[in-house]
Formats: sequence, C-alpha cells, structure tokens
Amino acid sequence: MTQYDPDNIFTKIMAGDIPSHKVYEDDDTYAFMDVMPESDGHCLVIPKTGSRNLLDAAPMTLGSLIVVTQKIAIAIQKAMNADGIIIRQFNEEPAGQTVFHLHFHIIPRYEGVPLKRHTGVMVANDVLAAHAEKIRAAL
Amino acid sequence: MTQYDPDNIFTKIMAGDIPSHKVYEDDDTYAFMDVMPESDGHCLVIPKTGSRNLLDAAPMTLGSLIVVTQKIAIAIQKAMNADGIIIRQFNEEPAGQTVFHLHFHIIPRYEGVPLKRHTGVMVANDVLAAHAEKIRAAL
Repeated sequence: MTQYDPDNIFTKIMAGDIPSHKVYEDDDTYAFMDVMPESDGHCLVIPKTGSRNLLDAAPMTLGSLIVVTQKIAIAIQKAMNADGIIIRQFNEEPAGQTVFHLHFHIIPRYEGVPLKRHTGVMVANDVLAAHAEKIRAAL
Repeated sequence: MTQYDPDNIFTKIMAGDIPSHKVYEDDDTYAFMDVMPESDGHCLVIPKTGSRNLLDAAPMTLGSLIVVTQKIAIAIQKAMNADGIIIRQFNEEPAGQTVFHLHFHIIPRYEGVPLKRHTGVMVANDVLAAHAEKIRAAL
C-alpha cells in the first residue's frame, strides 16, 4: 500500500489553512461538515494522527476515532431529527476513497428522502454553518 | 430508540443454532461470511455483547469491534487480492439496517467489478466455505 502523505486537504483543514465548519475537536480527533453532503448533516470524523485509511491506522487511533464517531452520530440524530444514520469508510480508490487521510462518514437518513450523489457542488456556507451549530448544541 | 432484542439471527449464529462460515472469533467478537455478499469475501463483524447498533453500543465494545474489523479487513484484502475495502455500518431501518444487532460490513472492491445488490439469493455454501478458509489463512 502507498505510504501516508501528510500533504492532503484534511491536514490543511485541521491546520486552519482551509476553512471548515467544525462540529467537534479533542486531542486526537477533528469533526466537521462535509461540504458536498449526501444528506443534511453529513459529517466527517478524522484522526489528528495521520494514516492513509483504516488499513494502516494504529489500533488506538481507530478506538478513539470510532468512539467520537458514535458521539457525533448521536448528536446528529438528535440535532437533525434523523430517522437513521449510515457510517461509511472507504479504503483505496477502487473503494471510493478520494482523500487519503483516514475518515469516517456519518450520513443521516430521513424517511422518504433519497441520498444526494456527490456532484461536486458545494452547499452554501450559511446552510453548513447552521447545521454545524445545531449539531454542536446537541453534543 | 427501540431496545436491543437478543432474539435475532446473529445471536442464533453465535450460539451455533444457525450455521455460519466463521472467519474469526475472540472473547468479544465474532466474524463470518455474509451469505448474500455484495462482492466475493464480504464479511460481517459483530460484538458478543448485544446492542441494537452503533448508537447504543458501549464505547469499549466499539473499540474492540473496530480493531477486529481492521484485522479482518487486512486479511480479506490479502486473501482475496482486493483493490479496495468498504466499511459500512447501518443504524435503524431508514438507514438500511435489517438485523438489529450491531454489525460492521467489510466489503472488498475489485477494479472494474460492480457491487452486487442484496437480492435475497444466497451464495452456495462451498463458495463461502472456500472464501472463509482463504481469509482465515491470511489472519
């Protein structure tokens, strides 16, 4: 497997070089709104310690990451009144991975509302900011 | 959220009342072949301690579950010569959950091979047995 490359968009987001709508941060973890959400409230959770994906991550990193993923998923369900939650994590390009820094997708589902496809169109900042605020308040 | 109901197909599988193609077991965790795989080598990883899904699981349960999920994912990639791996976990029916005992899907991807849909058709036992044997050997 290819080595982890720290020159990726998620390290730039954590460094503040690229803006993000943060919903949570602790010593090990950072969580923020996906700018091309598949549904309203779609968040990403990433570890501060770099790994390419789940396959090369340290077990301890995975442990804290999944616990924070649970915490955010519960907050999203509550804040966004979601009917269900999908957790997704992609490893390598043939599996759909596009950013090569380990991340979990938390995707709320709403009864009768199909998921949007990643179209490359970003959602307006004020919409994402409002969702982030609701989710932070539910944490 | 509805309470966990121990009367589900996965507890029956762990009890041996329903046969399964086991790939791994330890004190906390059980892993086996999905009988309706979306791709060859599709496995499920479940905790022995019951919870309905990720939302009501104990953080410690999640921690050991994700570490075993990583272990199996690496073995599947190696054994099945997969080009990528998708991890999926569904919470509640509107998100696609059909068995209400926490489980992670590990779905290998192969370049140029689309995922099969869950059609309700089970794969032949000898095929699943052969895949399970390959994955166990790679652990």
